[in-house]
Order: sequence, then structure tokens, then C-alpha cells
Amino acid sequence: MNSFGRLFRVSIFGESHGECVGITIDGCPAGLLLTAEDLLFDLERRKGGIQKGTTPRKEDDYPIFKSGIFNGKTTGFPITILFENNNTRSEDYQKQRDIPRPGHADWVAHQKFGGNEDYRGGGHFSARLTTGLVAAGAIAKKILASINISATIIEVGGETNIEKGLQKAIDTKDSVGGIIECIVTGMPVGIGEPYFDSLESALAHIMFAIPAVKGIEFGAGFKAAKMFGSQHNDAIENIKGKTTTNYAGGIVGGISNGNNLIFRIAIKPTSSTPKEQTSLNWNTEQMEKFSIKGRHDLCVALRAPVIVEAATAIVLLDMILLEQKLPKIIN
Amino acid sequence: MNSFGRLFRVSIFGESHGECVGITIDGCPAGLLLTAEDLLFDLERRKGGIQKGTTPRKEDDYPIFKSGIFNGKTTGFPITILFENNNTRSEDYQKQRDIPRPGHADWVAHQKFGGNEDYRGGGHFSARLTTGLVAAGAIAKKILASINISATIIEVGGETNIEKGLQKAIDTKDSVGGIIECIVTGMPVGIGEPYFDSLESALAHIMFAIPAVKGIEFGAGFKAAKMFGSQHNDAIENIKGKTTTNYAGGIVGGISNGNNLIFRIAIKPTSSTPKEQTSLNWNTEQMEKFSIKGRHDLCVALRAPVIVEAATAIVLLDMILLEQKLPKIIN
Amino acid sequence: MNSFGRLFRVSIFGESHGECVGITIDGCPAGLLLTAEDLLFDLERRKGGIQKGTTPRKEDDYPIFKSGIFNGKTTGFPITILFENNNTRSEDYQKQRDIPRPGHADWVAHQKFGGNEDYRGGGHFSARLTTGLVAAGAIAKKILASINISATIIEVGGETNIEKGLQKAIDTKDSVGGIIECIVTGMPVGIGEPYFDSLESALAHIMFAIPAVKGIEFGAGFKAAKMFGSQHNDAIENIKGKTTTNYAGGIVGGISNGNNLIFRIAIKPTSSTPKEQTSLNWNTEQMEKFSIKGRHDLCVALRAPVIVEAATAIVLLDMILLEQKLPKIIN
Amino acid sequence: MNSFGRLFRVSIFGESHGECVGITIDGCPAGLLLTAEDLLFDLERRKGGIQKGTTPRKEDDYPIFKSGIFNGKTTGFPITILFENNNTRSEDYQKQRDIPRPGHADWVAHQKFGGNEDYRGGGHFSARLTTGLVAAGAIAKKILASINISATIIEVGGETNIEKGLQKAIDTKDSVGGIIECIVTGMPVGIGEPYFDSLESALAHIMFAIPAVKGIEFGAGFKAAKMFGSQHNDAIENIKGKTTTNYAGGIVGGISNGNNLIFRIAIKPTSSTPKEQTSLNWNTEQMEKFSIKGRHDLCVALRAPVIVEAATAIVLLDMILLEQKLPKIIN
Repeated sequence: MNSFGRLFRVSIFGESHGECVGITIDGCPAGLLLTAEDLLFDLERRKGGIQKGTTPRKEDDYPIFKSGIFNGKTTGFPITILFENNNTRSEDYQKQRDIPRPGHADWVAHQKFGGNEDYRGGGHFSARLTTGLVAAGAIAKKILASINISATIIEVGGETNIEKGLQKAIDTKDSVGGIIECIVTGMPVGIGEPYFDSLESALAHIMFAIPAVKGIEFGAGFKAAKMFGSQHNDAIENIKGKTTTNYAGGIVGGISNGNNLIFRIAIKPTSSTPKEQTSLNWNTEQMEKFSIKGRHDLCVALRAPVIVEAATAIVLLDMILLEQKLPKIIN
Repeated sequence: MNSFGRLFRVSIFGESHGECVGITIDGCPAGLLLTAEDLLFDLERRKGGIQKGTTPRKEDDYPIFKSGIFNGKTTGFPITILFENNNTRSEDYQKQRDIPRPGHADWVAHQKFGGNEDYRGGGHFSARLTTGLVAAGAIAKKILASINISATIIEVGGETNIEKGLQKAIDTKDSVGGIIECIVTGMPVGIGEPYFDSLESALAHIMFAIPAVKGIEFGAGFKAAKMFGSQHNDAIENIKGKTTTNYAGGIVGGISNGNNLIFRIAIKPTSSTPKEQTSLNWNTEQMEKFSIKGRHDLCVALRAPVIVEAATAIVLLDMILLEQKLPKIIN
Repeated sequence: MNSFGRLFRVSIFGESHGECVGITIDGCPAGLLLTAEDLLFDLERRKGGIQKGTTPRKEDDYPIFKSGIFNGKTTGFPITILFENNNTRSEDYQKQRDIPRPGHADWVAHQKFGGNEDYRGGGHFSARLTTGLVAAGAIAKKILASINISATIIEVGGETNIEKGLQKAIDTKDSVGGIIECIVTGMPVGIGEPYFDSLESALAHIMFAIPAVKGIEFGAGFKAAKMFGSQHNDAIENIKGKTTTNYAGGIVGGISNGNNLIFRIAIKPTSSTPKEQTSLNWNTEQMEKFSIKGRHDLCVALRAPVIVEAATAIVLLDMILLEQKLPKIIN
Repeated sequence: MNSFGRLFRVSIFGESHGECVGITIDGCPAGLLLTAEDLLFDLERRKGGIQKGTTPRKEDDYPIFKSGIFNGKTTGFPITILFENNNTRSEDYQKQRDIPRPGHADWVAHQKFGGNEDYRGGGHFSARLTTGLVAAGAIAKKILASINISATIIEVGGETNIEKGLQKAIDTKDSVGGIIECIVTGMPVGIGEPYFDSLESALAHIMFAIPAVKGIEFGAGFKAAKMFGSQHNDAIENIKGKTTTNYAGGIVGGISNGNNLIFRIAIKPTSSTPKEQTSLNWNTEQMEKFSIKGRHDLCVALRAPVIVEAATAIVLLDMILLEQKLPKIIN
């Protein structure tokens, strides 16, 4: 199912080379001033074609509201937003049809959907589907005015200097991965539950919905496994719950403790590498060498921070609503 | 909410020092031979009191079926299983009441539930709640007879030699964390969806429901972020989808590709360390030194593999049912 | 699935002649004073064996709390309640095994669950499963202190005089049905949504979960279909939304309008009639005459009002939580 | 929330006088041949402007597919369909803004959404939102090829002669209601569960999502309450479960028994009657006489049968998928 959330619920649809991609947002509180302008800043951050190392495919990504807005405000009913696909080159994909691209979903999609999948540009699997998520995230952020969500890329191709990591990809004519860190300040205490509704469960759930994500860790994360309890435990030092350290990443027992939320996301290298590769031609049943055509990011992680922020905002708003703590809408 | 799953749904309840902990399993197919014996092997693996480094609290953990079984077989209706709490020492916790233990949920629980939480032994937050999960996992494993799920501890206290890592904890009188690796063989192709129903999303969701988990990575995981695309991409080499490498951990585009599922879990050191600690007494509003009483694991990771297996089995069965691929019940 | 509700969620389990029936209530707010005493009044109303025309089977129906209560108050975690089955006569059902009782689920259960269903006393299909619902309803009513929910039986065996309708059943040695009317006063405005989350949808959904219910109508209901618009429309006469008439039953556009909620439920005659009946013996494949053994209600509708109230309270509390309008807990 | 279904899930959006209304269908199996042509027959049946007694507003209601179709077939991913609103006269509604129309949601919407609701033509509350449902129903029907769903209007304005009932409305210059009967043949055995997932619960849930529905009854329905058990019980007469009578309407214990599904829906008279009415002007706080402008159906029940069929098909397909009984796609 292509939906997420219980009280603030997003549903995505569309294909990379179809007519459009889009999203429906259900449960958005009524009365929020909302225009395309509110979404453009974040949508721009997600776009390719501008930043070095991102896909040369250029799309306007201008949000077209189809419902849920009246007199410039949200009505409380579903908001459907479309983004047109205008700059597609589907012929690049038709030639490649019988050779499933390694790292991509071509082969599993073919097995699962019996050959009915739209394979052009990855179809529904394309990261282009995250456009809608970014729009929904911008709306959630606007509602969560007192909370600041900031994701940045902290490593590219194994280098903490982004520029250097990217140059490695350019030099080797290959693609690279990266690591995103997200920090949330202004967190209320008490968001999340132990077990299945833990804040970590919800955040991890949506983060792995972002294409190319292969790992997540909270606070000290994997390093916590190497620490002693006396080191890792964050001592509470005041009545507001402030801790002296924050190895827990702001979550204990699945519940936010009011300290900053901190987590990191591992993003694999773009599957579409410029390098020649080998894969099975499912028609001839022979291994074949081939090079990937189409326009691609050298490092998808570059465009991911704003998506991570959006996903975080969607989770937080949904869980804050579950806690009956909706912030007052301030226009 | 304390439930997980859509077609095979588990709901946990109980408190560490209450009368019992338990689980209800809804959606279990009818006709499966099922007795307490089927659950005991895994329940035994979860128990403390036996293995070095685990809590001295000993509980029978004998499953008491309350519903859903008739003539030794599942009926297709909810299976409720109780586990009695017999070996509790609640007085250890009453003394400590005003000083929230670092790393534990004491403070957030107090804030969120207004002081109504059962604080004895962590109450509902206790890892004892995973007893039911292990029982449900054993049932799911029995149904998924052709799939093998195996989790092992691969690192304790930063050491790949488990014995050595544990000795570090004993020597320093501190607690340690660890890393669990889970490998699933016999995976069918096509389980999972892109985006919100990705297999990674579902697995990560339930893994972060296990107390003390702070990170998860699939296949190459965080190392993937340091690889080139040409290295990370797993080439498909035969018509069954077998790949030459398995950096993806058996999942592409959110969907199982038939290769082994591989993921790792980071587990933080037990919050209840024998070391003296400092925390705020919320009554006096002063920082206080204290030592944790009660009986605890030096390394909770030691008991976690069977819980990770159970959680994996629950996710896989649920998603296989979603794919309309329920294996034939073989008794 | 045997669960209902999104924020106040109930899950029922158990069988008529198994060890117990029970319920888990998830999402109950913390801090509510709650003892068995709070449930006994409503549980008593549901019981057979007292009122004329109800089953001679007598059960204590004393609620045994297994979790979620601490120091006499709810903790915010799942409340599991068991009711023991002590007064069972399973041998009555074994004899009858091959002849599916008309009106009962015997035949469909056998088809659907492959013969694994617990057939004794209707197993999981038994109205005994509503015991848990009544308990959950009593809790919901306690929280919804400012709302009064009252269901009464207004017709038995086609007679508006209950005594007379029941006498008809006794005289003819047959079973009879009845009609229940439920009126809710003190309703807040704004509960429900248009379409799938309409208050009517939610109420109808849970009412048809009560065994033997075959119809529901709101306000004028089926009579509305015979009225003119100018008659049926309820004119708003003051700023609080009070209407001069209440043909809508307190719901317009799926949303409560603050007037009394009014609906009626049709309950079919007890399937277990004392009269001789004919059905197919699925073993011999011959039609056979037989009489139903076991102890049964002449009119199940007599015990239904408290179940209808409970179901109403569960829906209202859940939807009020969805509206972020939880009333303050008053102990 | 504006979604329904678990495995075949529909989500509606749009407003009566906004740019469009629409639907997203998630969970539609891949490989179904699908074009606009497949939907037009049912969409035509829902339209106003043709049949006597229906609204003079004429809309093309031509389905515009935005996603989920590739090479003329469904892909297994969400299908979003838009229907443009071209023939709107919003000025009719602006004049009336301060006087909530009796029977309509004007007042509750205003209370609940703080004046942010799109009031033009009923906004999101408009029965125009059912256009998408009819489209989804046509798709579900195509998949359920072996099942026949047929709803007809059996009473208008209290008359079983439709023509006569409608003439009453015309003569009195008032609106009238009606009763729809739906019969499903070719039902598989075993669809539904006892309690919350009963087939009656699911059908009733979605039926009350259709604007103006105020009652539903299955089989004998409200008449069952006046019958004896020996009359109402449907005797099983052959090994396939055929019953001699069908007072149960094809459902026992919440589960389909393979006999025809039969239920009836009560539809209230159109709230927008041509007659002069009285209501409170919420601005002046005075009662005011007024006549409803805009274009309306004299009897909304006339256009409802195809919506009832669509809703039935959506429920049945969803529940058949839950039973893991998806029929083979036949193109």
C-alpha cells in the first residue's frame, strides 16, 4: 500500500514517465494558509539539474493543487497535489527492457507484477515519487512551526568533505553513496510509545520508504553497541528532562525525551552507474555487458536531505496528532 | 498501540511485575497443530537465569493458551497466550521511585502517563513483554516451514569474541551492548512493495519495537554509503534471480529478490549498569548518586537473537499473507 | 480480524466452551480509577439465567484484570480482562456435529475453517464473546461521563409490549426477535466525517458485529424514504444547532449535530428455537429432522440493550479521541 | 479519513465546485485491461441531467487516468482518476452562506472546520464525490467477473411504482426519498468473519458513506424482528449450502453462505427541496424563510443504485482478497 500515517496520512501515486506524480494528504487540519509558494523552497532543494552530481533531467516540479484548498486555506479535506512529468526520454529504457539493471527493481518488479509494470524510468519505483513527500513535508513543517527539522549530508563516497567525495565519483566515472544526519530541535516530550509505535519504529518505517536507504541509527546507533552502559546512559540534569549527553538521540523507551532528535541514514550509491556492468538478459538467458543510458544522479544522497526532513515532519505531525497535541495553526 | 501486522496481527499486553505478560495472535490460519511444546525451544532461548551475563530473575515462561486452540489445532480465531510473573521483587523499585534511571523510560513515562505508569521492573516497558513475541514468532516459523530464519550475536562490547566482550563487562562491573545479525534463507521472490510497505520498512518497524535496539542496516548497510555503485550493485546471474554478491541484503526496491535476507541490529548496553550513576531526584530537584538495584542482564543483546528471529518471522508471515502466498499448512 | 477502533481499540478472543472469553482494550487513557465494581452493573444486565426468556446457562462473568491497572487506576497500557467459562455442557453439541443448525454459523464455519472450528456452543461465534464488549463499554461510558447512552428494547416478537411478545414465544414454543432503540444525550457537535468515517458508518459497523443484528436505521430511518424533504429536514432553531425535529437522528453529513443520537437495531429471532427443524446431515447427505439441545435464549434481543450501549460507547470514545476532544478524566 | 478498504483501498478527494473530484485506487491487481470505456457505462448511470427527477447540472464525468495504467493495463500501483467540474454555478451558494440549509451539513461543517470548509455546492460533502466510487466499483466488478451485483430502486416517495412516486414530488413541488435493493448472485462461500469483520459490518460501513443513506437491512431485516425462529431460520438443503429460504440475506455469523446476498438501503428525501423552508441565519441570529437555489435532484435515490453496486463491489473485492481468493484476471 502506498499510504503512510494514521491521522496525517499521505498517499503517493504516479510514475516517472507517466503523466504525473502526485500525493494526497488526508487529515491536514483546516485553516492553514497554503499556496504553491509554501512548497517551492523545499521542492527546489529536491530537484535535479542544478547541483553538481545530480541528474540532468529538469522538471518544473510546480505543485498543482487539485483539492482541499479554498480561499487560500486548507479545508480539512484531502489535499491532492500533482506534479507533471514533462522532461522524459522513455526510449532510453525500452532498449534495455530485457536486461534487468543490477541494484534496480527491474527483475523483482517483473516477477511480482507479471510484466505489467511501467518500466520507463523505473516507473512507480522512481525516486521521482518522493516529490509528493517533499510537498507533504513542507505542509507538515508549516504546521509544526515550533519544531525545527534539519537534515544535512555528512558524508559522500566515504569522505566527510562532500566536494571531495563527489569528485571521486566524477574521476572514477562511477556513482557513490552517502550519509545523511537529521537533527530535530524543539521536540515536545512524550511523543511515541514503547514497542510497535515507538518513535524509532515510525521514523525507521518511513525512512526505508525512501529509495536507496539501507540503514538507520539513532543517537550513538551502531557505536552504542561498543559502549559501556555507564557511558551510554544520558544522565537527566534538570526538571525539564535535559540530559548531559545525548547518546539516545532523544528517544528512550520509544518516547521522545525533549532533547534533540538525532539520527543518521545510510544511502547506497546510485544503482545507475556510468560504468559498464554485467547482467542476465532474461530473454536470451545469457549474461550481457551493457552501459546504463538515461540521465541519473552520480550520488542520490545529495538530493535526499530534504526528503529525510519531509519524512520526519510527516511522522512527527502524525504522532503529535495521536498524542492529541496538535499545535495551534498560526498563519 | 500495542499491535503489529495486518493479516497476521500480534497484540502484546502485561507488565513486568503484574500478574502476567501475554499476547493475542489474530489471523493465524486454521488447522495448524500447536501445543506448548512447539514454543518451548524458543522461549527457553529468551530466558534469563541460565546463560552467563543474563539476569538472575528466573521465570518458567510456560505458555498458557487461553483461546484459539481446539483439539490441539489452531481454529483460525485469536490465540491468547499468558505467561505468569512469579519471580518478582517489586520493593527494589519502590525505593528508587523519585530518581529516574538514566537510559530507562522512567522519566518519559512519568511525564506521559502522569504518574499512573506501573514503574515496577519497568512495567509495560520491560523486555519481558517480548516473551509473547517469541511465542508468536515460534508459531509463524512453524507455518513458514520452508523458510529458515537465524539470528546470532556477532559482537558483544565491541568484541567479535562473545566470551571476551562479556568478560569486559564483568571485569569493569559495567553493562555492554552488542550486534545481532539475522540471515533468512529460502526467501520467496516478491515480498514487499516500494515505499511504505517495503520489506525494509516493515522489518525496521518491528525491530525498533524491541527494547534497546538503536540501529538497523540491510546488506552492506552503512558500509554501502562508502562503496561505488559498480561495487555495490549485485549482478543477477541466473533466471531465478540469484546474484553474484548480496550487498543489497536480499531486498531491492523494497521487494525480496529471492537471495538471502541479511540485516544487522545494534543493541545498546543494558541501561541498568552495576556502576554508580547520577540523576535528578524529581522530588528534591537535586542531582543524586545512586546504584541500580534489581536483577539485570549485563548484556541484553545475549537474549535478543531469538526475539529478532521472532520479529522477522512475524513480518514475513504477515507480508506473505498480503501477497496471497500462504504456504500450505503441513502438520 | 477481531479488533475495532483506532485510538480506543478493543480486541476480543475466546470461545463459548473454552477456558474463557476476554478482551484487550488498547488506548484507554491513563489515570482512570477502575475496579471490577465499575463493570458489574452492565455485566449483570448482559447475563442470562435471571430474566425470563433468557438462557438458563449461568456464568459469574466476573472480570479478571490481567494487565493495564496499577494502584486501582488505568496506566495507559493495554487492559486485558478475562471471564471464565464454568457452566458448559459441551456434550449437547457433539451429538449434533454433522447437522448444521439453520440460522447458525455451523455450516459456513465448517467450510471456511476446514473443520478446525471449535463448534461447542458456537465456539468463537457465540454471543458470549460480547461479554468483553460490555466490559469495554462500561469503561468507555465512565470516561464519557457527560454523555448518556441508553438502549431499550421497544419491540419483542412484533409486540411493543415486551411481556406479551415473550409470552408468544413461550406459548408457541418458538423463539422471537426484537427491536432495540438507542438514544444518546449530551452529544458534542462535530463527531464524524462525511463518507467512510461517518458516525453512521462507524456505528453500523460495530452494531453488525453483534450477533443476530440484521438491520439498523438512524432517526426516521426507513420511514425517511417515505417522507417529503420539507417534512424530513430538521430546521435549526438556535445558535447551538438545536433542531425543531430530529428526523436525522442527530447526524447530518456523517457528523453529529449536537441533538440526540437516535438509532434502532433489528435483532432476528434466536436461531436455536425449541421447535423441531430440518437440515442436511453433511455426513449422510440426507435431510434430517432434529431438535436443538443446549440452553438458549428465547429472545436474544432481551440481553442486547447493554451490548448496544457498550458498542455505542466504544465508537463514540474512539471518534471523540480522533477529534482530539478527550474529556478530562474525572475520578 | 477519506479511505476505505484494506487490500483494495479507495481514497476519494475533491469538491463539488472545485477543479475536480477524484479517486485513488490502491491494491488493484496488475494486468487488468482497463480503459475509460470500461467505466463509462456505470458513470453514465450515476449522472444527472438525463433522467426525469435528477439535477439539471450536466457534467461529462469522463475519467482521466493519471497513474497506474501502462500499455492499457493496470500495473499493480495506485490508479488515480480525475473528473473535471465544468458546469458549476457557485454564486447560488454565496448568497445563502449565512443560513444553514436544513438537512445539509452546512451548520456542522461550519462548526467543525471553523468556517474554512468549501461551502459551494456542498463542497466535499457533495454526492458528486461518489463519481470516483462508481469508477472504482466498475473496476472491482470487472475483476469479480463471476459475481453479479445488481441494485435497483424498489420504492420512491413511498410508492413501489417509481413513476408515481416521482410524480408526487413534482406535483407537491417537494423532494422524495426511496429504497434501493441490492442482490448479488454468484457469491463464494466463506467471505467475512464473525464480529467486526462481518460482511454485514463492511457493507453497512460503506453504505453509510453514501450521502443520504439512513438505514440498511439484510435479508428479512427489520421484518426478521417480527418473525419466529422456526420461520426465519433458512434450512440448508444441499451439500453446497443452498437454503430453501433466504431470510438471512446470504450471510450467517457474518460470513457469506453462498446464497444470494440481499440487502436494502433507505435513502432520505433530497435535502434541497424546492419548498420554502425556515432556518436560523447565524449572522443575524434570526429565523429566516428562504428557498433553496441551485440545481438539485428531486429524488437522489434515482441515481443511487449504481453507487450502491459500486460500494458493494469494492467491499466484496477487498474481502475476497483478505480471504486469499482473488479470482484470476480474465481480459
